[in-house]
Formats: sequence, C-alpha cells, structure tokens
Amino acid sequence: MHNDKFYSTKAKNMESSKIREISKIISKRDIISLAGGMPSPDTFPIKIVSDLSSQLLKEKGSEALQYGTTTGYRELRGKVAEKLNENFDTSVDGENVLITSGAQQALYLIGKVFVERNDEVVVEAPTYASILQILQELEADVKDVKLKEDGFAVEEFEKYLENGGNPKLSYFVPTFQNPSGITTSGKKRRKLVQLADENDFLVVEDDPYHQLRYSGDNIPPIYSIDDQNRTIYVGTLSKLLAPGLRVGWIVARREFIDKLQLAKQPVDLCTNVFSQHLAYRYLKEDIIDRQIEKIKGLYKDKRDHMLDALRKFLPKGVDWTSPEGGMFIWLSLPEVIDTEEMFQEALDDGVAYVPGAVFYGNSPKKNTMRLNFTFVEEEDITEGVRRLGRLIESKVDGS
Amino acid sequence: MHNDKFYSTKAKNMESSKIREISKIISKRDIISLAGGMPSPDTFPIKIVSDLSSQLLKEKGSEALQYGTTTGYRELRGKVAEKLNENFDTSVDGENVLITSGAQQALYLIGKVFVERNDEVVVEAPTYASILQILQELEADVKDVKLKEDGFAVEEFEKYLENGGNPKLSYFVPTFQNPSGITTSGKKRRKLVQLADENDFLVVEDDPYHQLRYSGDNIPPIYSIDDQNRTIYVGTLSKLLAPGLRVGWIVARREFIDKLQLAKQPVDLCTNVFSQHLAYRYLKEDIIDRQIEKIKGLYKDKRDHMLDALRKFLPKGVDWTSPEGGMFIWLSLPEVIDTEEMFQEALDDGVAYVPGAVFYGNSPKKNTMRLNFTFVEEEDITEGVRRLGRLIESKVDGS
Repeated sequence: MHNDKFYSTKAKNMESSKIREISKIISKRDIISLAGGMPSPDTFPIKIVSDLSSQLLKEKGSEALQYGTTTGYRELRGKVAEKLNENFDTSVDGENVLITSGAQQALYLIGKVFVERNDEVVVEAPTYASILQILQELEADVKDVKLKEDGFAVEEFEKYLENGGNPKLSYFVPTFQNPSGITTSGKKRRKLVQLADENDFLVVEDDPYHQLRYSGDNIPPIYSIDDQNRTIYVGTLSKLLAPGLRVGWIVARREFIDKLQLAKQPVDLCTNVFSQHLAYRYLKEDIIDRQIEKIKGLYKDKRDHMLDALRKFLPKGVDWTSPEGGMFIWLSLPEVIDTEEMFQEALDDGVAYVPGAVFYGNSPKKNTMRLNFTFVEEEDITEGVRRLGRLIESKVDGS
Repeated sequence: MHNDKFYSTKAKNMESSKIREISKIISKRDIISLAGGMPSPDTFPIKIVSDLSSQLLKEKGSEALQYGTTTGYRELRGKVAEKLNENFDTSVDGENVLITSGAQQALYLIGKVFVERNDEVVVEAPTYASILQILQELEADVKDVKLKEDGFAVEEFEKYLENGGNPKLSYFVPTFQNPSGITTSGKKRRKLVQLADENDFLVVEDDPYHQLRYSGDNIPPIYSIDDQNRTIYVGTLSKLLAPGLRVGWIVARREFIDKLQLAKQPVDLCTNVFSQHLAYRYLKEDIIDRQIEKIKGLYKDKRDHMLDALRKFLPKGVDWTSPEGGMFIWLSLPEVIDTEEMFQEALDDGVAYVPGAVFYGNSPKKNTMRLNFTFVEEEDITEGVRRLGRLIESKVDGS
C-alpha cells in the first residue's frame, strides 16, 4: 500500500512548525533553551487548581464531566466579558464570547471562517509563527508590514493600500508581541482602526500577554477603541493560569461568534468542560488578579536579568528590543550572520533560540532570533546568553 | 459594515448540526428527551476523578498544567496501545497512537488529511451525523450503502464498485452503531477488509461503544483483522470515563499518525494535558475495567427498559433494532410518517427524538428516528415511549 496516494493536497503540503521541531531536538539534549514559548511552571497555581478541582467536582461534578455547548460554558462566557469590561472599559456580554481550546484554536477558527484561498491578509513582519502556518494552509496571500519600535510601519501599510492592496483581514499582536516583544503605540492603534474603516477590512487582535506588563503604561486594546466593532479579539488563560488546561476565547460581534461556533462544531464539538469550569472559578473569585501580580513579579526579574546579560555578553553590532512585558526579546545580528545556519553550532555550544526567519510571511530577515525569558531559571538565562554572545562574537570576528 | 462580505465560502455554506439545535430547544422546555447522545451522569466516577486529580497535581502538577506535544502524552499513548493489544490481540505501540480532543477531533483530522474535494467516501446509511457534517465541509462525494440487520449491504457495495466506484475512504461504526445500534457481523467485517484490499481504499473504524456490550458475543474490531493495516481506528474515553474531559485517539500506521499530528498543530497545538494525565491514571490502575462493569450494568437495564416500553406502547407497523450494546435504538415507522414533520407535535406532547433524516448522506428515509436510552431515567424512558406511541398511533389512524 502506498501511503502517498491517500493524502489530500493540504496534507501533502503540510510542514511541521519549526518551533515544535526545535523543541523536540532540545528535549533530548542538555541544552539551555531560550527557544520555547512556555510560561514558567513556577507560575502554575497548583494548590489553587487542586482546591478548585475538588470543590468543582463536589459541587458540579456531573455538569463538569458532561458534554457542553459548542459556544462554551455560559457562566465562563459571561465572566470573560465582565473581566474585559472591567479591564478595558468595553461593553460586551457573554453572547459576544466563544470559548476555544486555547488561543491557537481561536486563530484556526478565524482562519476557517474568514479566509479564502488568495485572500489578502496583512500581518506584521515578524509575526506569530502559528498564524503563518494557518494562513499557508488556507493558501492566503500574506502581505507583511515591517514592525518598528512602536508598531507597524504606517507608511508601508498606506503605500500597499494605495497601490491597490485589498486586505480582507489583518492580524496583529499589538501588545508585547510574539516574537518581538514590541508594543504598538496608542497612536498607531488608532491609525490601524482608521485604515480598517476606510478600507473595510477586519482586524484580528491576538492579546495573550496584555496583563503581563512589567513597566510602562497600559495601552488599551484595539478592540476597545474600535467603534465599528470590526476587531476580533483573542484572549487566553495559557499565560495567566496554565496552558495545559487549553482555555482561550474569541470576543467579537454576535454574528461572527455564531459563524465561529458553527466552524467549531465539526472540529471538536466543545471545549474541555472541566477546564472551563475551573477557569470560571479561577476568574470568579478574583484569584486571577492576585496570581497575575505574582507572575509579573517573577517575569519582571527574568526580563531584567536577560536584558542585563545581553548588555554584558553581546558584542557590538547586535541590537535587541526592550519589551515592557510579555515573554520575548528579539535580536537583530550583523547581516553576515544567518541564525538558521548558526543554529547547529549554538546547539553544540549548549544553547538554543528560535531563528527569526520562521516569523516572516515573506522575505525573512535571516539575521534575527527570538529569545524567551520566562521558562528558564535566571542562572541559565545568564549562562545561555553568555554562550550565545561568545558564538556571535566568533562569527563577527571571523567575517 | 456588512458581515457577509467577510465570510469564506466554507463559512457561507456551514450548517448547524441539527442534533445540537434540537438539544438547544429541548434544554429550554420540560420535555423528556430521547434525542441526545449523552452518557448518563450516573456513570461519571466523580470521586475517582477527584482523587486522581489531587494525586496528579501533587505528583506531576507542573507537567500536567504545561503545554504538551501535539501527538499527546507519551505515557497515555503507550497505555492506549497496551489496552488495545490486551483487548483485541493487536500489536500496536505508542507510536501508532495520536491523542485527540475527543473522537470528534479525530474524525476532523482524518477528513483534513485524507479527503479532497470530490473524493468518494463510502458511509453506512444511516451513519453518524457529524461525519456527514465534516464530509460536507470537505465537499466529498458521499456514497452511502444501506445498513441491514447484520451490517452494510454487501451486494450494494459490490455493485457500486463494479460500476466504477472508486472510494478513497470508507467510514464505519461497526459496533453498536450510532444511530442504529446495529453491529456489523464478523463475516461482513472480513468482507469489508477484502473489498478495501482489492480496491485499495482506507477504512475508518469509529469505535466508541465497543466495550459497552450488554449481551451477545464480542466481535473483534476491523482494525484487528486487517493484515494490510489500512484501517484507521478511532477510540474515546467519552463513554467510558467522561465526555467533558475530551480525550480520544487515533490508532494507525506511523506515517498516517505523523501526517495527522501535522494536521493537528494549527488546530489546537495539543490536547488538554491535564485530561491526558487523568486519563492515563484512569487506564493505568485498571480503574476503567471496574468502571466499565458498572456502566454496563446500568445501561443494560435501561436498554431492556426501553425495549419493553417499545413492545408495550408502539403500534403495529413500527419496527426497531435490538442492539446488543451502545446507546441507541433505531425506529422505522410506517412510510406515511415523516419524523421531521412530526417533531413539533412530539415536542408539544413532551417527548423528543432525533428525526432519522439527519443520519443520511443521500436519500434520507424520512420515516425513521433515533432514540437514546442512556441519558434519561427509567421512568422517563417509559413515559417518553408511551407519549411517542400515542402520537404515532394517532398518525397511523389518521392516514
């Protein structure tokens, strides 16, 4: 039997996420990984989850273990809306919320509902790698707009539009972006909304890190300043509770939520009901607020630690971002260095990162890389960056 | 802003699952529902889940709350393989297993990997409604083969093949089928494997109810008698532990598993890790075996109860299946009755069923319906069937 005969075109074209492949390699070796995108397990409120589980099973076991509706647990939908209104002065209700199996599924469903083959979709360059995987699968026409220190390059976006660009959708991670750590300024957010209104396209705002701000002032989400309600907001508890529970959500106009739940039915019927009930209790009793404070304390120190190490160990000619929150720092190396080519050497030296090329829809900048500061211990951050600095230095010297 | 402009063709064509719509209507009214497909909450081992959760969080909290691999928790994959080998004398290992967010996701991923627009896919008539939703979305060319008392109509399948039929995939629920309760005989299973070999197509065996046998002798799964290993086996804990935990799996040749995990990456990164660890502990300590005995005891009584009620209250001219396991009984009414047309009257009389038409890929038999006997209490089974009998009788008299 020949396997290949049976695959769909889609399946034939599938490529594995490079980040997932890197993770596999690393997990087998003694390497300091600054590559992953995982929260620190030190932030998981294990005791709290245990207590909430016991209570939940005692009080609502039959419901928490049964099938649920595709849109999600009603109480959780209401609570997500309430928290959003509380934090960002919006006025949404539970009917505007679809609970998903993590933010990843939210993005997948949005792709399924809104993106057709050859549709133009604008993303930042660099952008979140998984959205590129989704858009590739949908055969979208990906247009990327350069990311500057305060967000997307407005002139470039405008030029694209003036030259007949006709986007249907745009995708932004405006706050502490993955992979760059960059935050889009308030001014640029307003500009984006204006461009979207004038050119009638949708904005997907992926916002997993918003509440992980370690310095600087809060900037309201695009969703909250969009009067026409053309923004589709994606949130998650993966970084504020635990990713293993797979609870995310989409907030959008009701008609969109209705389509998105239709798209979800064949995918998995419903999101894990047990997790949804746990999430509800975690939000309801405001445990989340105390927990966020703890996480921020831990991550702020780690970020500062990595920034210190970068200043100390990296040679001249290397630039990096100084994120005010989130999980990532973005490095730009001298252009002679290709971080994909250098990757094997880095592994041999006992340190890993994600080569920046995977985060570009088009024309990758090969001299870039993403570093994560949340997962590893502080001493490993220092040692990892030290190894990286030594390697880069050898490359610069050798060129 | 006009919403419609933004939808993909796929989204424009999406239709809600009729069963999900029925569930919504019913949940708002005082109706005895024989419509759902839910296990009885009396079967949920709440105390066991609570104890396992506490232990798990104490011993492996950091791992159970973190992101996991897309293929699934290694220990669970191994255990699923082991249980399969134990039960069905197969020889698979963990590498042949992909953990999914319930069996529904398993079917979705199989569709994504193997089915292309216009591909011929053979299903039973009637068949599981959700597979039809998936195949419709993929624009497959669905061919259905009539279901007889002992499984698919062999002559009809052969005739279709002789007349140039060229299936890529076939989908069967051979044991206690949803919706009919029918079990495909061993002879017909062997015949199917032979047809698949001769005509080089794949077999998807969806097997959620196998271990819920209340009478008769076990018939080995198709997967276990397929020497060429062209069967893709789908299993789940939804009926043997709890559906709210969303743990299912695919067992297949490694190359297929690899493609299927690629297909899963953009969909949800990984299955709920907490649930996977719970599932592993549930399987490991053989708690599942004791639990299955309890579930069978409860459901056998319910099945017998419904069969008694059918004999007592249904008028002449109505036929029904006598399933040896599973969750459903299938009714064939006099042809003058359209169960979709009758549905509103049934609701007014305080009883619900699923009109049979939703279970057909082509040419629905409109005089059929599915009844579930696992979810409702015994006295409600009696009363529900009594109401149904009265309604049908009035239709037959009136015609």
